[in-house]
Parts: sequence; structure tokens; C-alpha cells
Amino acid sequence: MKIAIDAMGGDHAPDEIVAGAIEAVKEWQDMEVTLIGDEAKISPLLKDIQRINVIHTTDMITGEDEPVRAVRRKKNSSMVLMAEEVKQRRADACISAGNTGALMSAGLFVVGRMEGIDRPALSPTLPTKDGSGFLLLDVGANVDAKPHHLVQYAIMGAVYTEKVRKVDNPRVGLLNVGTEDGKGNDLTKRAFAELTKAPIHFVGNVEARDLLEGAADVVVTDGFNGNIALKTIEGTALTMFSMLKQTFMSNWKSKLAAGLVKQELRELKDKLDYSEYGGAGLFGLAAPVIKAHGSSNKRAIYNAVKQARNMVELNVTETIEKTIKEMHLEEEE
Amino acid sequence: MKIAIDAMGGDHAPDEIVAGAIEAVKEWQDMEVTLIGDEAKISPLLKDIQRINVIHTTDMITGEDEPVRAVRRKKNSSMVLMAEEVKQRRADACISAGNTGALMSAGLFVVGRMEGIDRPALSPTLPTKDGSGFLLLDVGANVDAKPHHLVQYAIMGAVYTEKVRKVDNPRVGLLNVGTEDGKGNDLTKRAFAELTKAPIHFVGNVEARDLLEGAADVVVTDGFNGNIALKTIEGTALTMFSMLKQTFMSNWKSKLAAGLVKQELRELKDKLDYSEYGGAGLFGLAAPVIKAHGSSNKRAIYNAVKQARNMVELNVTETIEKTIKEMHLEEEE
Repeated sequence: MKIAIDAMGGDHAPDEIVAGAIEAVKEWQDMEVTLIGDEAKISPLLKDIQRINVIHTTDMITGEDEPVRAVRRKKNSSMVLMAEEVKQRRADACISAGNTGALMSAGLFVVGRMEGIDRPALSPTLPTKDGSGFLLLDVGANVDAKPHHLVQYAIMGAVYTEKVRKVDNPRVGLLNVGTEDGKGNDLTKRAFAELTKAPIHFVGNVEARDLLEGAADVVVTDGFNGNIALKTIEGTALTMFSMLKQTFMSNWKSKLAAGLVKQELRELKDKLDYSEYGGAGLFGLAAPVIKAHGSSNKRAIYNAVKQARNMVELNVTETIEKTIKEMHLEEEE
Repeated sequence: MKIAIDAMGGDHAPDEIVAGAIEAVKEWQDMEVTLIGDEAKISPLLKDIQRINVIHTTDMITGEDEPVRAVRRKKNSSMVLMAEEVKQRRADACISAGNTGALMSAGLFVVGRMEGIDRPALSPTLPTKDGSGFLLLDVGANVDAKPHHLVQYAIMGAVYTEKVRKVDNPRVGLLNVGTEDGKGNDLTKRAFAELTKAPIHFVGNVEARDLLEGAADVVVTDGFNGNIALKTIEGTALTMFSMLKQTFMSNWKSKLAAGLVKQELRELKDKLDYSEYGGAGLFGLAAPVIKAHGSSNKRAIYNAVKQARNMVELNVTETIEKTIKEMHLEEEE
């Protein structure tokens, strides 16, 4: 098992990226990691570590780079070289905490699509109240989706959730403006009809209000709406924590209260921190590509490696391909 | 000034609706209210109250009714009779806390559209961290919007925010998946180009993450996305309050802390409660139509009356019509 990691992507690169990779090779004896980035910065962090090799490059894609152009022009950037490792089958999967748009481009243009999938989907696992989490896809890989794309997302999400997240017969919902059948815009009405015929456990429409209550294990939507939902959850949670902090700082009684529940509030914040669920998978590519959060620390990178490892070991890519192929065969019959 | 109110709509009808109407006529000497609903239930609540008259009907539209069909068939329902009062110019504006979809249908089919507006927009004011709030439109009147609809929303929102909410030269933003120009799906890319030419203070794209931070005073989006954003904010806030409650109940120290900040937490909750900003305006109709929240108490109804009153007094409808007409004249030149 070999995972390629972009050592230069993310706010805490390369230190935390390298530290996460070291944790991973220590955990699994069969794990090999290829780090791509500036050897002068990486090697000093690696003394006496086995099963990690480095591909040296000083070029990198930054957060300011225009994604598609950057991937086309910066052929020697750490991210593009990482994707090349997967394309050339020298690695089974890859991970980057860098520019999300660029990683989607590198996934599409370098790693390439999986057979039977028209558009990849960016798929984070988000927290729910009960701690079980749900997979939301797509959150921005494809902002103008067609109904059959949503069916493909549903299959990819269901296979991943069943195999990697160990949820039996996962409930797949369609993000919509009401729970009744027949609700929604042109896209969701047509997608609803197609989803009822797909080889998944489709539970119908799911309202945005019920997402964090765990209304479904997998929620499909177009990339524009998914991005709005994801960022609204993030923004609302951040604003509320910031308001809560103000509340606790308002007088001596509230400050005393803050001291009493400090530990519990930190646990609440952790519960809502979705980096614990690993990175966002870029599903629909020829091999697992994981987008780790930009602020990833070594724990988040370790979790992303674990996630990529699970996807490889449990044949997620092959199972999705097979499911899509069988669906088309049945449709033709 | 006369306002027609559906006395039978909402979770606390007719008691809280009638109580809110009473507060309103007490506040303003020139205010007359027509309550539409079951006289046997309403009149006992009205002893010795001046300037409130009742139109009796026992028929009503419920939350379970299919909106368009209900408005067409239940001609004597309290909601349809309320809309008729406005159409026949016996009232200047109307308010209902009932079925949102039915109110949108009654607005469109009974009250009728404003000249120059193709589609009405449902427009709530949502809370921001600093307490100033922002107007979001559309949140579901028109789930398949075209770019020029978003321009009309922008003008309606800007006029309302300037006149009623007293914000000088309000900042209008386009809800999008990134803040850079050129981001988004087909709809937002085309709407962006049209918004730059509209007679508004357009500040460009706004990300969902920054909504509650007050990134703009008016945020325009299609009804599908707006509904997702609105319900995601509601759902995330509710889930977080519920998790916070669990946190405070977890042990004796946290229970003690809860007692110490009880009052402050209630204030925080109130700050996030958008019924304080009045109801959601159904903008683009020939007269003001206000959707009060389903759980409206008398305070919320009083606020909705105040909002409708302001819209009438400050000529919001006429100003929007005039602005749209001038824009078209300029385009033709």
C-alpha cells in the first residue's frame, strides 16, 4: 500500500503533513508514503523514519492560483507530481491539504475519471448531533449538475458509506426545499424520479433544517447548493461560537460559568469539527483522492491516510464501477 | 391605513393573532384592522376594542393543503378573503401566519403582481452577529429563477432596506460559492454581469460562510438556494442550542454554570430569533403581503403590522415600480 502526499499543501505544511505521514507509517507496517515537496524542508523532519521517500520539487500551487491554469502550467508543482504518482500507478491513492479547486483539476486531468462516472464529486463527512455524521456530495466539484450526476453521486456515496463508514444499507436523501415528493426545482424533481430507480436505499427528500439531526447517511445535491449548505453550516457554527464566547465574557458571573464548562465546551466544539471524520473524498476518480482541510494538523493528515487506506483496501473504486455497470446493464434489459 | 389579517393562520391562531392586532390599533390612532376568520372565536377576544372589524368565515387553509389547489378551491377561506380585501382596495396590506405556499399563491393569483416584476420573492430579514440583520431573497417563491429575476430581487430588496430598515445605500450581494468575480454556476455568472449594471450598490459575490457576519445588507439568490441557506441557518442554530443544552446538563458543575448564564443565553437566543425583525415580505406584489412566522405570538404579529404599515407609509411598492421603470427607460436609450 503506497500513498502519495502533497507535502507543501495546507496552512501547516510541511511540518504537520510530514508528522501525520510519520504517524501513519508507524501505525501500519505495510504502509509506504511518498512525500512530494521541498526536500530541504522535509528531510530534517524525517530522521530515521522507514518507508517514507521524498520526491523533491520546489514548485507549488498556492491558494491564490487559478485552479485549472495552475494545474496545466505548474507541471512540477508538488500537487501535480503527487497526482502523477497515482496516474503512473506508483501510488494507490493521494492526499493534499492545498488549493481545493486545483486538487479537483489535478484529479480530473491527471488522475482521470473512473469508468461510468461523468463528473467527480467533492464529498466531506459532516457532523450530526448523535455523532454518527453524514456524507454530503457534491460540495463544489460540479456547480451545474444534471439529474444523472446526482444518481452517480448517490451510488458513490452509498458504496463509500457502507464500506468505509460501516453503515449497513445507508439511507440516501436528496437535499430539497421540502420533504414531500414532487417538491423542488427542475433539477431535484427530475433527479427524484431517477433516484427512486437507482440501486440504493433512497429515503426521498431531505430538508436542510434536518441535516445535522441525521436525516440521512448520504445526502446528494448539486455542487452549488452543496457548497452553500456546507458553508452555511460552517458559518453559522463559527458565528454562534463567537457569540457564545462574547456571552461568557460579559460579566463576572458568566466568566465563572465559562470556567466551569470549559472542558465540556471544548468537547462540543470537537464534536462539530468535521476534520475528525477525515478529509473530503473526491469521488469518481480512477483512484482515491482525498482533500484534507486547509488547516489540517498531523492528526487530520493521519485520519486522511487512514481514510485513503480504507478506500483502497475495501475496493471502493472497483465496487462503484461495478455497481454503475450493473445498473446500466439492467436499464438496457 | 387599513391592514387585513388572516386570523386563522399560524400555530397560535386566533388568540395571539387577535392580541397582536389589538396591540397595533392601540399603538397607532389611524390604524384599522380587518380580521378574517371564525367570528365565534374572534369576537370574545375583542370586547370594547375600536377600529377592528371582523369578516366571518369558518373555511380555512391548513398546513397540509396543497397551496395552489387550496387557493383556487377554498374561495371562502380566511386567507383568500384576506387577499381579496387587498385586491378590492379595502385594505392597504395583509398579513398571514398560515401556509407559506398558499400565501404565495394567494399573493400571486389574488393580490396580483406589481408592474415590472416577473416573479415575487419571499424575503425574510435574518440576524447578523452585530444585530443589524440582512435581507435574504428569494427563499422559495421561485425555485427556478433567471438572472433578470435576481436583478429585480436586488432592486426590491434595496428599496425596502433603504426605506423601511433605514440603511443608507444598502450593500447588495449575490450569494455564491466564492467571493471572486467569475465564480459560480451558470445562473450566478449571468446574474453577476446584470447586477453590475443595475441601479443598486452591488458589492459582488457573498459566501454563505459570511452571511451572519453581515457581509451585505441585501443578499439575492434563487428561491431554491435561498431556502437551503435559510433552513441550514435555522437547523444549525437549533441543533447547536440543543447540543449546548445537553452540555449544560452533563454534570453538577455544568448545571451550576447554566444557572449563572441563564439570562445571557436567553438573550443570545433572542438575538438569533429573526421574528424580532418582523415577518417575511412577499415582495413584487401590487401591495405589501407579509408572511408572519408560523409560531408567531402577539409580539410577532404586532411587528408584522408595523412592518406592513411602514411599507405602505413609505411607498415601498411605488418606489420599486418607479425604479424598475426608470431602469428599463435607461436600457432603451
